[in-house]
Amino acid sequence: MVTKNQIKLVVGLKQKKSRIEHGLFVAEGEKMVGELLDAGLRPHLVFVDGGPRSRDLGEVEVVGEDIFGQISSLKRPNGVLGVFHMPVAKMVGGADWILALDAVRDPGNLGTIIRLCDWFGIQQLLCSKDTVDCYNPKVLQATMGSIARVDIAYVDLEEQLRDSPRPVFGAFMEGDAVYGTKLPGKGVLVMGNEAHGISVPLQALIGQRISIPQYGEATAESLNVATATAILLSEIRR
Amino acid sequence: MVTKNQIKLVVGLKQKKSRIEHGLFVAEGEKMVGELLDAGLRPHLVFVDGGPRSRDLGEVEVVGEDIFGQISSLKRPNGVLGVFHMPVAKMVGGADWILALDAVRDPGNLGTIIRLCDWFGIQQLLCSKDTVDCYNPKVLQATMGSIARVDIAYVDLEEQLRDSPRPVFGAFMEGDAVYGTKLPGKGVLVMGNEAHGISVPLQALIGQRISIPQYGEATAESLNVATATAILLSEIRR
Repeated sequence: MVTKNQIKLVVGLKQKKSRIEHGLFVAEGEKMVGELLDAGLRPHLVFVDGGPRSRDLGEVEVVGEDIFGQISSLKRPNGVLGVFHMPVAKMVGGADWILALDAVRDPGNLGTIIRLCDWFGIQQLLCSKDTVDCYNPKVLQATMGSIARVDIAYVDLEEQLRDSPRPVFGAFMEGDAVYGTKLPGKGVLVMGNEAHGISVPLQALIGQRISIPQYGEATAESLNVATATAILLSEIRR
Repeated sequence: MVTKNQIKLVVGLKQKKSRIEHGLFVAEGEKMVGELLDAGLRPHLVFVDGGPRSRDLGEVEVVGEDIFGQISSLKRPNGVLGVFHMPVAKMVGGADWILALDAVRDPGNLGTIIRLCDWFGIQQLLCSKDTVDCYNPKVLQATMGSIARVDIAYVDLEEQLRDSPRPVFGAFMEGDAVYGTKLPGKGVLVMGNEAHGISVPLQALIGQRISIPQYGEATAESLNVATATAILLSEIRR
Protein backbone atom coordinates (compact mmCIF):
# COMPACT_ATOMS: atom_id res chain seq x y z
CA MET A 1 0.00 0.00 0.00
CA VAL A 2 1.50 3.29 -1.11
CA THR A 3 1.49 6.03 1.50
CA LYS A 4 1.03 9.78 1.10
CA ASN A 5 4.53 10.28 2.44
CA GLN A 6 5.98 8.02 -0.25
CA ILE A 7 4.20 10.01 -2.96
CA LYS A 8 5.43 13.24 -1.40
CA LEU A 9 8.98 11.87 -1.34
CA VAL A 10 8.95 10.86 -5.01
CA VAL A 11 7.44 14.17 -6.13
CA GLY A 12 10.03 16.02 -4.03
CA LEU A 13 12.88 14.14 -5.74
CA LYS A 14 12.20 16.14 -8.91
CA GLN A 15 14.23 18.83 -7.11
CA LYS A 16 18.00 18.51 -6.91
CA LYS A 17 18.01 19.81 -3.33
CA SER A 18 15.71 17.02 -2.22
CA ARG A 19 17.72 14.39 -4.13
CA ILE A 20 20.87 15.44 -2.30
CA GLU A 21 19.10 15.65 1.06
CA HIS A 22 17.73 12.10 0.75
CA GLY A 23 20.57 10.59 -1.30
CA LEU A 24 17.88 9.20 -3.61
CA PHE A 25 16.92 9.63 -7.25
CA VAL A 26 14.11 8.51 -9.55
CA ALA A 27 14.42 6.46 -12.75
CA GLU A 28 11.53 5.59 -15.04
CA GLY A 29 10.92 2.78 -17.48
CA GLU A 30 11.26 -0.98 -17.12
CA LYS A 31 14.49 -1.05 -19.13
CA MET A 32 16.17 1.73 -17.16
CA VAL A 33 15.07 0.40 -13.76
CA GLY A 34 16.15 -3.10 -14.80
CA GLU A 35 19.59 -1.86 -15.87
CA LEU A 36 20.10 -0.03 -12.59
CA LEU A 37 19.14 -3.17 -10.66
CA ASP A 38 21.47 -5.27 -12.84
CA ALA A 39 24.28 -2.81 -12.16
CA GLY A 40 23.84 -3.38 -8.44
CA LEU A 41 22.22 -0.08 -7.49
CA ARG A 42 20.16 -0.35 -4.34
CA PRO A 43 16.41 0.29 -4.84
CA HIS A 44 14.46 2.17 -2.20
CA LEU A 45 11.02 1.72 -3.79
CA VAL A 46 9.85 0.39 -7.16
CA PHE A 47 6.36 1.28 -8.39
CA VAL A 48 4.66 -0.55 -11.25
CA ASP A 49 1.23 -0.44 -12.84
CA GLY A 50 -0.69 -3.68 -13.18
CA GLY A 51 0.51 -4.31 -16.78
CA PRO A 52 2.56 -7.31 -17.93
CA ARG A 53 6.31 -7.11 -17.27
CA SER A 54 9.02 -8.68 -19.40
CA ARG A 55 11.45 -9.00 -16.51
CA ASP A 56 11.66 -9.38 -12.76
CA LEU A 57 12.05 -6.09 -10.90
CA GLY A 58 12.32 -7.52 -7.39
CA GLU A 59 9.98 -6.25 -4.71
CA VAL A 60 7.44 -3.88 -6.27
CA GLU A 61 4.48 -1.80 -5.22
CA VAL A 62 1.55 -1.96 -7.66
CA VAL A 63 -0.17 1.43 -8.01
CA GLY A 64 -2.90 2.87 -10.22
CA GLU A 65 -2.71 5.30 -13.12
CA ASP A 66 -3.78 8.20 -10.88
CA ILE A 67 -0.73 7.67 -8.66
CA PHE A 68 1.59 7.37 -11.67
CA GLY A 69 0.23 10.67 -12.94
CA GLN A 70 1.32 12.28 -9.68
CA ILE A 71 4.78 10.77 -9.30
CA SER A 72 6.00 10.55 -12.90
CA SER A 73 8.05 13.26 -14.63
CA LEU A 74 6.94 11.96 -18.02
CA LYS A 75 4.01 13.22 -20.04
CA ARG A 76 3.06 9.61 -20.62
CA PRO A 77 4.13 7.56 -17.59
CA ASN A 78 5.30 4.17 -18.77
CA GLY A 79 4.30 1.99 -15.85
CA VAL A 80 7.60 1.55 -14.01
CA LEU A 81 9.21 4.03 -11.63
CA GLY A 82 12.09 3.21 -9.34
CA VAL A 83 13.54 5.24 -6.48
CA PHE A 84 17.20 4.37 -5.99
CA HIS A 85 19.95 5.19 -3.54
CA MET A 86 22.62 7.29 -5.27
CA PRO A 87 25.75 5.22 -5.64
CA VAL A 88 28.74 6.62 -3.77
CA ALA A 89 31.40 7.77 -6.24
CA LYS A 90 34.25 5.30 -6.00
CA MET A 91 36.88 7.46 -7.71
CA VAL A 92 38.22 4.60 -9.81
CA GLY A 93 41.97 4.80 -9.22
CA GLY A 94 42.98 2.41 -11.95
CA ALA A 95 41.18 4.14 -14.82
CA ASP A 96 43.48 4.84 -17.76
CA TRP A 97 41.67 7.91 -19.08
CA ILE A 98 39.45 10.19 -17.04
CA LEU A 99 36.96 12.62 -18.54
CA ALA A 100 36.42 15.91 -16.68
CA LEU A 101 33.53 18.28 -17.40
CA ASP A 102 33.73 21.96 -16.53
CA ALA A 103 30.24 23.46 -16.11
CA VAL A 104 28.38 21.45 -18.76
CA ARG A 105 24.84 22.71 -18.30
CA ASP A 106 22.60 20.97 -20.80
CA PRO A 107 21.02 17.72 -19.47
CA GLY A 108 20.96 16.17 -22.95
CA ASN A 109 24.67 16.85 -23.39
CA LEU A 110 25.58 15.30 -20.04
CA GLY A 111 23.40 12.26 -20.73
CA THR A 112 24.99 11.76 -24.15
CA ILE A 113 28.47 12.15 -22.65
CA ILE A 114 27.76 9.51 -19.97
CA ARG A 115 26.59 7.15 -22.75
CA LEU A 116 29.84 7.87 -24.63
CA CYS A 117 31.92 7.10 -21.53
CA ASP A 118 30.18 3.74 -21.29
CA TRP A 119 30.77 3.04 -25.02
CA PHE A 120 34.43 3.96 -24.92
CA GLY A 121 35.22 2.36 -21.56
CA ILE A 122 35.87 5.60 -19.67
CA GLN A 123 35.14 4.46 -16.13
CA GLN A 124 35.65 7.74 -14.31
CA LEU A 125 33.78 10.96 -15.04
CA LEU A 126 34.63 14.01 -12.94
CA CYS A 127 32.15 16.89 -13.00
CA SER A 128 32.70 20.39 -11.67
CA LYS A 129 30.15 21.28 -9.02
CA ASP A 130 28.33 23.61 -11.44
CA THR A 131 27.81 20.83 -14.00
CA VAL A 132 24.16 19.78 -14.34
CA ASP A 133 23.09 17.10 -11.85
CA CYS A 134 23.45 13.63 -13.38
CA TYR A 135 20.30 12.49 -11.54
CA ASN A 136 18.20 15.10 -13.30
CA PRO A 137 15.44 13.09 -15.08
CA LYS A 138 16.42 14.49 -18.50
CA VAL A 139 20.03 13.40 -18.02
CA LEU A 140 18.94 9.94 -16.91
CA GLN A 141 16.73 9.46 -19.96
CA ALA A 142 19.56 10.52 -22.29
CA THR A 143 22.05 8.10 -20.70
CA MET A 144 19.95 5.10 -21.80
CA GLY A 145 21.03 3.18 -18.70
CA SER A 146 24.74 3.93 -19.05
CA ILE A 147 24.65 5.88 -15.79
CA ALA A 148 24.77 2.54 -13.99
CA ARG A 149 28.18 1.74 -15.48
CA VAL A 150 30.16 4.98 -15.18
CA ASP A 151 31.55 6.29 -11.90
CA ILE A 152 30.49 9.94 -11.67
CA ALA A 153 31.87 12.30 -9.02
CA TYR A 154 31.11 15.99 -8.45
CA VAL A 155 34.38 17.51 -7.32
CA ASP A 156 36.48 20.65 -7.09
CA LEU A 157 38.04 20.26 -10.53
CA GLU A 158 40.82 22.75 -9.86
CA GLU A 159 41.98 20.71 -6.89
CA GLN A 160 41.71 17.42 -8.79
CA LEU A 161 43.59 18.66 -11.84
CA ARG A 162 46.29 20.38 -9.83
CA ASP A 163 47.14 17.08 -8.16
CA SER A 164 46.65 14.90 -11.26
CA PRO A 165 49.34 12.26 -11.78
CA ARG A 166 48.01 11.96 -15.38
CA PRO A 167 48.82 14.45 -18.14
CA VAL A 168 45.92 16.91 -18.56
CA PHE A 169 44.50 17.62 -22.03
CA GLY A 170 41.83 20.21 -22.74
CA ALA A 171 39.55 20.75 -25.75
CA PHE A 172 39.87 24.24 -27.21
CA MET A 173 38.82 25.94 -30.44
CA GLU A 174 42.51 26.77 -30.94
CA GLY A 175 44.92 23.99 -30.07
CA ASP A 176 47.04 21.21 -31.54
CA ALA A 177 45.06 19.24 -34.11
CA VAL A 178 44.05 16.03 -32.36
CA TYR A 179 44.66 13.94 -35.49
CA GLY A 180 48.39 14.65 -35.29
CA THR A 181 48.68 14.54 -31.50
CA LYS A 182 50.19 11.50 -29.87
CA LEU A 183 47.84 10.65 -27.02
CA PRO A 184 49.39 8.69 -24.13
CA GLY A 185 47.95 5.54 -22.55
CA LYS A 186 46.72 7.49 -19.54
CA GLY A 187 45.40 11.00 -19.27
CA VAL A 188 42.65 13.39 -18.30
CA LEU A 189 40.53 15.07 -20.98
CA VAL A 190 38.79 18.29 -19.92
CA MET A 191 35.71 19.53 -21.82
CA GLY A 192 34.30 22.97 -21.14
CA ASN A 193 30.98 24.78 -20.88
CA GLU A 194 28.69 24.98 -23.93
CA ALA A 195 29.05 28.75 -24.33
CA HIS A 196 32.29 29.68 -22.59
CA GLY A 197 34.54 26.64 -22.93
CA ILE A 198 37.01 25.79 -20.19
CA SER A 199 37.06 28.38 -17.39
CA VAL A 200 40.11 30.59 -16.93
CA PRO A 201 41.30 29.12 -13.59
CA LEU A 202 41.25 25.62 -15.12
CA GLN A 203 42.98 26.74 -18.32
CA ALA A 204 46.18 27.25 -16.34
CA LEU A 205 46.13 23.58 -15.33
CA ILE A 206 45.85 22.20 -18.88
CA GLY A 207 49.13 20.70 -20.07
CA GLN A 208 48.17 20.46 -23.76
CA ARG A 209 45.41 22.17 -25.71
CA ILE A 210 43.88 20.02 -28.43
CA SER A 211 41.28 20.83 -31.06
CA ILE A 212 39.25 19.13 -33.78
CA PRO A 213 40.26 20.64 -37.11
CA GLN A 214 37.54 22.21 -39.17
CA TYR A 215 37.37 21.13 -42.79
CA GLY A 216 36.84 23.42 -45.74
CA GLU A 217 35.99 27.06 -45.32
CA ALA A 218 35.80 27.15 -41.54
CA THR A 219 32.30 28.55 -41.40
CA ALA A 220 30.77 26.62 -38.50
CA GLU A 221 31.34 28.33 -35.18
CA SER A 222 31.89 25.36 -32.97
CA LEU A 223 30.90 21.79 -32.37
CA ASN A 224 28.40 20.83 -29.71
CA VAL A 225 30.24 19.65 -26.56
CA ALA A 226 28.75 16.14 -26.77
CA THR A 227 29.76 15.63 -30.42
CA ALA A 228 33.25 17.05 -29.70
CA THR A 229 33.55 14.61 -26.78
CA ALA A 230 32.51 11.77 -29.10
CA ILE A 231 35.28 12.60 -31.55
CA LEU A 232 37.98 13.08 -28.90
CA LEU A 233 37.13 9.86 -27.02
CA SER A 234 37.16 8.03 -30.36
CA GLU A 235 40.65 9.47 -31.02
CA ILE A 236 41.82 8.33 -27.58
CA ARG A 237 40.58 4.77 -28.20
CA ARG A 238 41.22 4.23 -31.92
CA MET B 1 2.25 47.97 -40.61
CA VAL B 2 1.81 44.28 -39.92
CA THR B 3 -1.41 42.77 -41.26
CA LYS B 4 -3.63 40.05 -39.86
CA ASN B 5 -2.84 37.92 -42.87
CA GLN B 6 0.89 38.20 -42.21
CA ILE B 7 0.41 37.06 -38.62
CA LYS B 8 -1.78 34.19 -39.83
CA LEU B 9 0.90 33.19 -42.32
CA VAL B 10 3.70 33.14 -39.72
CA VAL B 11 1.61 31.19 -37.21
CA GLY B 12 0.65 28.73 -39.95
CA LEU B 13 4.31 28.11 -40.79
CA LYS B 14 4.68 26.22 -37.50
CA GLN B 15 3.09 23.36 -39.48
CA LYS B 16 5.20 21.43 -41.99
CA LYS B 17 2.28 21.25 -44.43
CA SER B 18 2.00 25.02 -44.52
CA ARG B 19 5.80 25.44 -44.89
CA ILE B 20 5.76 23.20 -47.94
CA GLU B 21 2.66 24.86 -49.40
CA HIS B 22 4.20 28.33 -49.14
CA GLY B 23 7.84 27.38 -49.65
CA LEU B 24 8.61 29.49 -46.58
CA PHE B 25 10.05 28.87 -43.13
CA VAL B 26 10.59 30.85 -39.93
CA ALA B 27 13.89 31.50 -38.15
CA GLU B 28 14.25 33.34 -34.85
CA GLY B 29 17.05 35.31 -33.27
CA GLU B 30 19.24 38.09 -34.60
CA LYS B 31 22.22 35.78 -35.05
CA MET B 32 20.29 33.10 -36.93
CA VAL B 33 18.43 35.56 -39.14
CA GLY B 34 21.70 37.41 -39.82
CA GLU B 35 23.46 34.18 -40.82
CA LEU B 36 20.68 33.23 -43.20
CA LEU B 37 20.85 36.68 -44.80
CA ASP B 38 24.65 36.44 -45.05
CA ALA B 39 24.31 33.03 -46.70
CA GLY B 40 22.15 34.61 -49.39
CA LEU B 41 18.76 33.23 -48.38
CA ARG B 42 15.91 35.39 -49.61
CA PRO B 43 13.83 36.97 -46.81
CA HIS B 44 10.07 37.28 -47.20
CA LEU B 45 9.47 39.26 -44.00
CA VAL B 46 11.65 40.20 -41.03
CA PHE B 47 9.99 41.28 -37.77
CA VAL B 48 11.89 43.01 -34.98
CA ASP B 49 10.94 44.57 -31.69
CA GLY B 50 12.03 48.10 -30.98
CA GLY B 51 15.20 47.06 -29.09
CA PRO B 52 18.77 47.89 -30.15
CA ARG B 53 20.28 45.69 -32.89
CA SER B 54 23.94 44.83 -33.26
CA ARG B 55 23.70 44.33 -37.02
CA ASP B 56 21.77 45.39 -40.10
CA LEU B 57 18.92 43.05 -40.98
CA GLY B 58 17.79 44.82 -44.15
CA GLU B 59 14.16 45.84 -44.48
CA VAL B 60 12.35 45.12 -41.22
CA GLU B 61 8.88 45.49 -39.74
CA VAL B 62 8.87 46.77 -36.16
CA VAL B 63 6.17 45.06 -34.07
CA GLY B 64 5.17 45.04 -30.41
CA GLU B 65 5.59 42.38 -27.76
CA ASP B 66 1.97 41.28 -28.16
CA ILE B 67 2.57 40.42 -31.82
CA PHE B 68 5.81 38.60 -30.99
CA GLY B 69 3.90 36.54 -28.45
CA GLN B 70 1.56 35.41 -31.24
CA ILE B 71 4.09 34.64 -33.96
CA SER B 72 7.06 33.24 -32.00
CA SER B 73 7.61 29.54 -31.30
CA LEU B 74 9.82 30.42 -28.35
CA LYS B 75 8.72 30.66 -24.73
CA ARG B 76 10.67 33.90 -24.54
CA PRO B 77 10.63 35.56 -27.97
CA ASN B 78 13.98 37.23 -28.56
CA GLY B 79 12.97 40.18 -30.68
CA VAL B 80 13.90 39.01 -34.19
CA LEU B 81 11.86 36.70 -36.40
CA GLY B 82 12.49 36.19 -40.09
CA VAL B 83 10.36 34.45 -42.68
CA PHE B 84 12.55 33.07 -45.47
CA HIS B 85 12.04 31.40 -48.80
CA MET B 86 13.29 27.81 -48.62
CA PRO B 87 16.40 27.47 -50.72
CA VAL B 88 16.01 25.08 -53.63
CA ALA B 89 18.24 22.03 -53.11
CA LYS B 90 21.05 22.31 -55.62
CA MET B 91 22.21 18.68 -55.42
CA VAL B 92 25.88 19.64 -55.31
CA GLY B 93 27.40 17.39 -57.96
CA GLY B 94 31.01 18.01 -57.10
CA ALA B 95 30.79 17.07 -53.42
CA ASP B 96 33.39 14.49 -52.42
CA TRP B 97 31.43 12.87 -49.60
CA ILE B 98 27.67 12.90 -49.25
CA LEU B 99 25.83 12.13 -46.04
CA ALA B 100 22.47 10.34 -46.35
CA LEU B 101 19.98 10.04 -43.49
CA ASP B 102 17.39 7.28 -43.42
CA ALA B 103 14.40 8.26 -41.28
CA VAL B 104 16.20 10.28 -38.60
CA ARG B 105 13.29 11.49 -36.49
CA ASP B 106 14.65 13.58 -33.65
CA PRO B 107 14.91 17.33 -34.43
CA GLY B 108 17.91 17.76 -32.12
CA ASN B 109 19.76 14.95 -33.88
CA LEU B 110 19.11 16.39 -37.35
CA GLY B 111 20.16 19.87 -36.20
CA THR B 112 23.37 18.52 -34.69
CA ILE B 113 24.11 16.52 -37.86
CA ILE B 114 23.64 19.62 -40.07
CA ARG B 115 26.09 21.48 -37.81
CA LEU B 116 28.55 18.57 -38.18
CA CYS B 117 28.23 18.66 -41.99
CA ASP B 118 29.13 22.35 -41.90
CA TRP B 119 32.12 21.67 -39.61
CA PHE B 120 33.47 18.82 -41.69
CA GLY B 121 32.80 20.39 -45.09
CA ILE B 122 30.08 17.94 -46.16
CA GLN B 123 28.20 20.08 -48.67
CA GLN B 124 25.41 17.68 -49.58
CA LEU B 125 22.98 16.11 -47.13
CA LEU B 126 20.36 13.75 -48.53
CA CYS B 127 17.38 12.95 -46.31
CA SER B 128 14.81 10.23 -46.84
CA LYS B 129 11.32 11.68 -47.10
CA ASP B 130 10.45 10.37 -43.62
CA THR B 131 13.36 12.21 -41.99
CA VAL B 132 12.25 15.10 -39.75
CA ASP B 133 11.75 18.39 -41.63
CA CYS B 134 14.91 20.51 -41.50
CA TYR B 135 12.79 23.68 -41.24
CA ASN B 136 11.20 22.47 -38.01
CA PRO B 137 12.00 25.22 -35.44
CA LYS B 138 13.76 22.76 -33.12
CA VAL B 139 16.03 21.61 -35.94
CA LEU B 140 16.82 25.20 -36.92
CA GLN B 141 17.78 26.13 -33.37
CA ALA B 142 20.09 23.10 -33.08
CA THR B 143 21.86 23.90 -36.36
CA MET B 144 23.19 27.19 -34.96
CA GLY B 145 23.02 28.78 -38.42
CA SER B 146 24.76 25.93 -40.23
CA ILE B 147 21.57 25.24 -42.18
CA ALA B 148 22.51 28.18 -44.42
CA ARG B 149 25.70 26.44 -45.54
CA VAL B 150 24.66 22.84 -46.22
CA ASP B 151 22.63 21.77 -49.24
CA ILE B 152 19.78 19.62 -47.93
CA ALA B 153 17.52 17.62 -50.22
CA TYR B 154 14.60 15.33 -49.33
CA VAL B 155 14.76 12.50 -51.83
CA ASP B 156 13.87 8.90 -52.56
CA LEU B 157 17.03 7.47 -50.98
CA GLU B 158 16.63 4.05 -52.61
CA GLU B 159 16.65 5.65 -56.05
CA GLN B 160 19.59 7.90 -55.22
CA LEU B 161 21.71 5.12 -53.76
CA ARG B 162 20.91 2.66 -56.53
CA ASP B 163 22.30 5.12 -59.08
CA SER B 164 25.19 6.36 -56.94
CA PRO B 165 28.51 6.71 -58.79
CA ARG B 166 30.16 6.87 -55.34
CA PRO B 167 30.80 3.82 -53.16
CA VAL B 168 28.09 3.53 -50.50
CA PHE B 169 29.01 3.00 -46.83
CA GLY B 170 26.50 2.41 -44.06
CA ALA B 171 26.81 2.63 -40.27
CA PHE B 172 25.81 -0.61 -38.54
CA MET B 173 26.21 -2.06 -35.07
CA GLU B 174 27.99 -4.99 -36.72
CA GLY B 175 30.39 -4.06 -39.50
CA ASP B 176 34.04 -3.50 -40.32
CA ALA B 177 35.72 -1.42 -37.62
CA VAL B 178 36.00 2.07 -39.09
CA TYR B 179 39.46 2.59 -37.57
CA GLY B 180 40.90 -0.12 -39.83
CA THR B 181 38.83 0.69 -42.91
CA LYS B 182 40.42 2.56 -45.79
CA LEU B 183 37.95 5.25 -46.72
CA PRO B 184 38.16 6.53 -50.30
CA GLY B 185 38.28 10.18 -51.36
CA LYS B 186 34.65 10.11 -52.42
CA GLY B 187 31.72 8.25 -51.03
CA VAL B 188 28.25 8.23 -49.51
CA LEU B 189 27.77 7.56 -45.80
CA VAL B 190 24.30 6.34 -44.77
CA MET B 191 23.11 6.75 -41.17
CA GLY B 192 19.89 5.08 -40.04
CA ASN B 193 16.91 5.70 -37.80
CA GLU B 194 17.44 6.17 -34.03
CA ALA B 195 15.65 2.95 -33.07
CA HIS B 196 15.75 0.71 -36.15
CA GLY B 197 18.97 1.66 -37.97
CA ILE B 198 19.11 1.52 -41.75
CA SER B 199 15.90 0.15 -43.30
CA VAL B 200 15.94 -3.25 -45.00
CA PRO B 201 15.43 -2.03 -48.59
CA LEU B 202 18.39 0.35 -48.22
CA GLN B 203 20.59 -2.29 -46.58
CA ALA B 204 20.77 -4.09 -49.91
CA LEU B 205 22.30 -1.01 -51.51
CA ILE B 206 25.13 -0.60 -48.96
CA GLY B 207 28.48 -1.64 -50.40
CA GLN B 208 30.35 -1.75 -47.09
CA ARG B 209 29.07 -1.92 -43.52
CA ILE B 210 31.18 0.01 -41.04
CA SER B 211 30.92 0.30 -37.27
CA ILE B 212 32.48 2.17 -34.37
CA PRO B 213 34.18 -0.37 -32.11
CA GLN B 214 33.06 -0.45 -28.52
CA TYR B 215 35.80 -0.38 -25.91
CA GLY B 216 36.00 -2.55 -22.84
CA GLU B 217 33.14 -4.78 -21.77
CA ALA B 218 30.67 -3.85 -24.52
CA THR B 219 27.91 -2.84 -22.17
CA ALA B 220 26.47 0.23 -23.87
CA GLU B 221 23.75 -0.66 -26.35
CA SER B 222 24.44 1.87 -29.03
CA LEU B 223 25.65 5.36 -29.73
CA ASN B 224 23.26 8.19 -30.45
CA VAL B 225 23.01 8.76 -34.23
CA ALA B 226 24.41 12.31 -33.98
CA THR B 227 27.46 11.25 -31.95
CA ALA B 228 28.05 8.27 -34.28
CA THR B 229 27.87 10.66 -37.26
CA ALA B 230 30.39 12.94 -35.53
CA ILE B 231 32.87 10.09 -35.15
CA LEU B 232 32.41 8.76 -38.69
CA LEU B 233 32.72 12.17 -40.37
CA SER B 234 35.85 12.79 -38.29
CA GLU B 235 37.25 9.48 -39.56
CA ILE B 236 36.47 10.48 -43.16
CA ARG B 237 38.27 13.80 -42.77
CA ARG B 238 41.18 12.96 -40.47
